[in-house]
Amino acid sequence: MIESLLQQIAFIKEIDKLKYILRRTRLLHSDRRENDAEHSWHLAMMAIVLAEHANEPVDLLKVLKMVLIHDIVEIDAGDVFLYDTKKNHSNTAEELKAAQRIFGILPREQAAALIALWEEFEAGQTAEAKFARALDRLEPLLQNASNDGGTWKEFDVRYDQVVGRKKVIAEGSDRIWAFAEALLRQSLREGILKK
Amino acid sequence: MIESLLQQIAFIKEIDKLKYILRRTRLLHSDRRENDAEHSWHLAMMAIVLAEHANEPVDLLKVLKMVLIHDIVEIDAGDVFLYDTKKNHSNTAEELKAAQRIFGILPREQAAALIALWEEFEAGQTAEAKFARALDRLEPLLQNASNDGGTWKEFDVRYDQVVGRKKVIAEGSDRIWAFAEALLRQSLREGILKK
Repeated sequence: MIESLLQQIAFIKEIDKLKYILRRTRLLHSDRRENDAEHSWHLAMMAIVLAEHANEPVDLLKVLKMVLIHDIVEIDAGDVFLYDTKKNHSNTAEELKAAQRIFGILPREQAAALIALWEEFEAGQTAEAKFARALDRLEPLLQNASNDGGTWKEFDVRYDQVVGRKKVIAEGSDRIWAFAEALLRQSLREGILKK
Repeated sequence: MIESLLQQIAFIKEIDKLKYILRRTRLLHSDRRENDAEHSWHLAMMAIVLAEHANEPVDLLKVLKMVLIHDIVEIDAGDVFLYDTKKNHSNTAEELKAAQRIFGILPREQAAALIALWEEFEAGQTAEAKFARALDRLEPLLQNASNDGGTWKEFDVRYDQVVGRKKVIAEGSDRIWAFAEALLRQSLREGILKK
């Protein structure tokens, strides 16, 4: 048996754990919290159907790989809520250690490539990373708007805070941000998001 | 607001339902049944790390799109168990109707492209479809082997039946089939799969 294949199978088994990492947000019109594996699948589908709206042309294969792997570090480091003021959300030492352990199960070159891709996503500087991060910010808006305010209500997050954390969507796609802004204004009018 | 974007958002909301479609198989070392969204994510990750083992060179972007969308028809048509002798597993009229309804929410050209891709997956003739189908057959083997026989025991499925339904893995990847065959023989020796 080829050694690389056995390492890859070990990695495939290890990442099954992503199906147990729960996010704060709940499925559309639902009480059930979303897990990271479902979330990653949904972002990948969003990338496929929304790629044409990216501000700059994007390499869709790269965007797909990014969104599929972007939360794998949470198997060790856990999910951090976007509005958490105590814990830094991105690219902590804990997350880097997790990336090295989990992707490190793979053959060396493959591990290095996926760690580099995850770091590119976290840095948010390339066209692909900006677009992938826009999708990651969009999904909870759709969820909260469908759930009578969802985590906005649950954690008393206000309109200005949401706009503050979500306007980076515009870096990936002005068109998607225009949609998101309209949705936030509508949520304000409906009273499910407070000033 | 651009009409195509609104159609795409409506599609993105509709496919949230895939997170409720349960498969027979359970997560690794677990009693919890897997849902189709998690399953699709896991196949996509398998495609990324195992693509080098495909018999023929594959277009990874196409494989990823295929595995990400392959079960979306089950939102309407439901999951069919691989060893179900009463219900035909693939490409039924019911599934085609589901594909037309669900992908039909998208702008016309995008809908047609995704329906064609789903049909290509179902037909299993191209290099990408063969490889994607191999991954779809591999995941439950890993799950059942980790779960003391899992659905093999639960539904009294025997070694010859499993080999009969799984040997198509070799059409996508001889190397992955060699691994799968070894895993099945080991399961036989351990008594979690019966002759």
